[in-house]
Amino acid sequence: MAYLNDHYLKLRSGYLFPEIARRVKVYCEQNPEAAPGLIRCGIGDVTEPLPPAVIAALHQAVEEMAKRDTFRGYGPEQGYEFLRHAIAQNDYRDRGLEIADDEIFVSDGSKCDCGNILDILGPQNRIGLMDPVYPVYVDTNVMAGHTGPADESGAYQGLVYLPCTPANGFVPEIPNQQVDVIYLCYPNNPTGAVTTAEQLSAWVNYALQNKALILYDSAYEAYISDPLIPRSIYEIPGARECAIEFRSFSKNGGFTGTRCAFTVVPKTVMASTRDGKFTSLHPLWLRRSATKFNGVSYIVQRAAEALYSADGKGQVRELIGHYLGNAKVLREGARAAGLNVFGGVNAPYLWAQAPNGITSWQAFEKILLEAGVVITPGSGFGKNGEGFFRISAFNSRANAEEVARRLQALKWW
Amino acid sequence: MAYLNDHYLKLRSGYLFPEIARRVKVYCEQNPEAAPGLIRCGIGDVTEPLPPAVIAALHQAVEEMAKRDTFRGYGPEQGYEFLRHAIAQNDYRDRGLEIADDEIFVSDGSKCDCGNILDILGPQNRIGLMDPVYPVYVDTNVMAGHTGPADESGAYQGLVYLPCTPANGFVPEIPNQQVDVIYLCYPNNPTGAVTTAEQLSAWVNYALQNKALILYDSAYEAYISDPLIPRSIYEIPGARECAIEFRSFSKNGGFTGTRCAFTVVPKTVMASTRDGKFTSLHPLWLRRSATKFNGVSYIVQRAAEALYSADGKGQVRELIGHYLGNAKVLREGARAAGLNVFGGVNAPYLWAQAPNGITSWQAFEKILLEAGVVITPGSGFGKNGEGFFRISAFNSRANAEEVARRLQALKWW
Repeated sequence: MAYLNDHYLKLRSGYLFPEIARRVKVYCEQNPEAAPGLIRCGIGDVTEPLPPAVIAALHQAVEEMAKRDTFRGYGPEQGYEFLRHAIAQNDYRDRGLEIADDEIFVSDGSKCDCGNILDILGPQNRIGLMDPVYPVYVDTNVMAGHTGPADESGAYQGLVYLPCTPANGFVPEIPNQQVDVIYLCYPNNPTGAVTTAEQLSAWVNYALQNKALILYDSAYEAYISDPLIPRSIYEIPGARECAIEFRSFSKNGGFTGTRCAFTVVPKTVMASTRDGKFTSLHPLWLRRSATKFNGVSYIVQRAAEALYSADGKGQVRELIGHYLGNAKVLREGARAAGLNVFGGVNAPYLWAQAPNGITSWQAFEKILLEAGVVITPGSGFGKNGEGFFRISAFNSRANAEEVARRLQALKWW
Repeated sequence: MAYLNDHYLKLRSGYLFPEIARRVKVYCEQNPEAAPGLIRCGIGDVTEPLPPAVIAALHQAVEEMAKRDTFRGYGPEQGYEFLRHAIAQNDYRDRGLEIADDEIFVSDGSKCDCGNILDILGPQNRIGLMDPVYPVYVDTNVMAGHTGPADESGAYQGLVYLPCTPANGFVPEIPNQQVDVIYLCYPNNPTGAVTTAEQLSAWVNYALQNKALILYDSAYEAYISDPLIPRSIYEIPGARECAIEFRSFSKNGGFTGTRCAFTVVPKTVMASTRDGKFTSLHPLWLRRSATKFNGVSYIVQRAAEALYSADGKGQVRELIGHYLGNAKVLREGARAAGLNVFGGVNAPYLWAQAPNGITSWQAFEKILLEAGVVITPGSGFGKNGEGFFRISAFNSRANAEEVARRLQALKWW
């Protein structure tokens, strides 16, 4: 008799985005004249086309695949050396960070990697997560059997939720209980917050002292414009001993539909066997990749490589500039509307406090019905997201300006 | 303190292909004059370029990504409807098999899916595998903690190995002990064997009677030339209730470096919770996809769709014809050399018996040193692979003909 994985049955229905879609649909049906003017600032997906350097690289790689002499079959599961080298050199070594080419693992997405990394970790780890949180960290731990059931608020037993609030600048305090694996995400989704080197050092020191592991998601690294804010956790001394970093080409090169990302696993990151023997995680992740993955499409790896060319770098800067320009317009508009707004400076997300003590969903309804704008209710990201909503800056400039106008025209009080 | 997954430490080093590479390197260093003439019939990777219909579709999709109006960001994790529909219609419904579009899950590889499917299955399943076997089935079960350690022969405690030999035509007999999850792969890698409808029916009936689950890998389906051989397990009555099928574009469209595959999960396939409640696996796999995967690159999905166009179908037929033509040349050459050869009729692999009772590795050495040809020793696929070797037909016709000549020139006796 075949058995299923019972842990899946603990999962709460992924209600957030389907529920948003449902309410938007009802709105459009009931307001057919307003529907064409609806502006979506909900899902964090890029809107601008792939940069010209990427398009050229894609066409060229496709031509290579058309000829027997240059055709590529199976590639290395961990990524082609040309791309691993470009990443390690440009994103790390050129910035003075010691990362070897073979510590870079090219993948088809950070979401996949954030989930798959649990494959090489033991079931006995106590998991610490920021709250509000990217739901994938939570759900993959539920699936892996690292939690009990969810309580009424949607929090799962056994996970350690670390509150992120305006009071701590959305950077969690070091917990007073032991955690073994900690997810940190900066620039943060959903709050748009960043962490200072000092704040991040406190976490690295905690991890070193407790032999804990930090899973550092910096998918939005390209949006950091303040030179004092760390772009990589490896800028913090000791991080090579305790941190795995996840990065993506989704939000810099606009690869959300093209699919390429990477994970950095320094050979010096260790974890313990059941009987207390410390050993490097690098060979385990290498073995996982070779066994359960077949590498990213060759043409897509050539596309990602093009982001590191001189042209590509300039075009990425333009893209980031565009979205950060939107964020500025939205932030100023929301502030002029009297809203208390966080983020949006070093991140493509704004995190706004719902005024007058209304809930996240009440704010969603008001903004949808009265302004024709879709935002994301903060409560969908966890208990500490209640009372907030997320505005995404992924849009055209014209739409960002229109949303800023509509927020100001809204009668909040 | 962070803990690793101890089960990874049970894994035997993946010695087969690295060991082949090492011996080939030594040979080339010691025989520099012979090295340029070396012919590789080892790894099962395609050699011919992508079909023209695919190249055209790729260029067109790249152009779509270059323009704001046609740019695609995040797609559905399970695959675009255009591809799911093309697959379900062409590969199933047009052949009278009832498979709905939303029972097709598009992925970046069958290897990934074969490993990932274990995520939704419980740890208490008793796993049955063919021997010789594609090592990914074994290793992913070891990683998931479904086995004890390996014994001297490399077999893992807790797995049920089902011998595949010339005596049973490389189709395992129904075991006399209970198995809950059974991996079957036809056309088979490495033996090149196929299964009749009658043999497959016996397995489907076993699964139905025992509420077991069949994981059916038909990555080489396109090579079936005999109209009486089932191309899909769903040709067998009852299979919709007990089987998940894995397919790939790697070996028909030549996508080994382009990456696209799919898994069929009928909504009627059930498995049991710990407390004996039967429930459909489809929503679990859907949830896994949505949580741990972000879909296949849009341009690659358009490339896969092109394989179902009239031009694409014709070009795939040509590719398959080319490789099957090689297989015929190799088979006739090996037979003329006096070898006992299986497979190579409905599959791109030949499975040859090492003559005179020599071992797989002895045959490997002899063929490398005396014929300058690389094959794969059968013992690398399991205990019942000992005494055999695999010859791959993925090559140019000229190389296949040369290998056939060299095998005949070899002095076996």
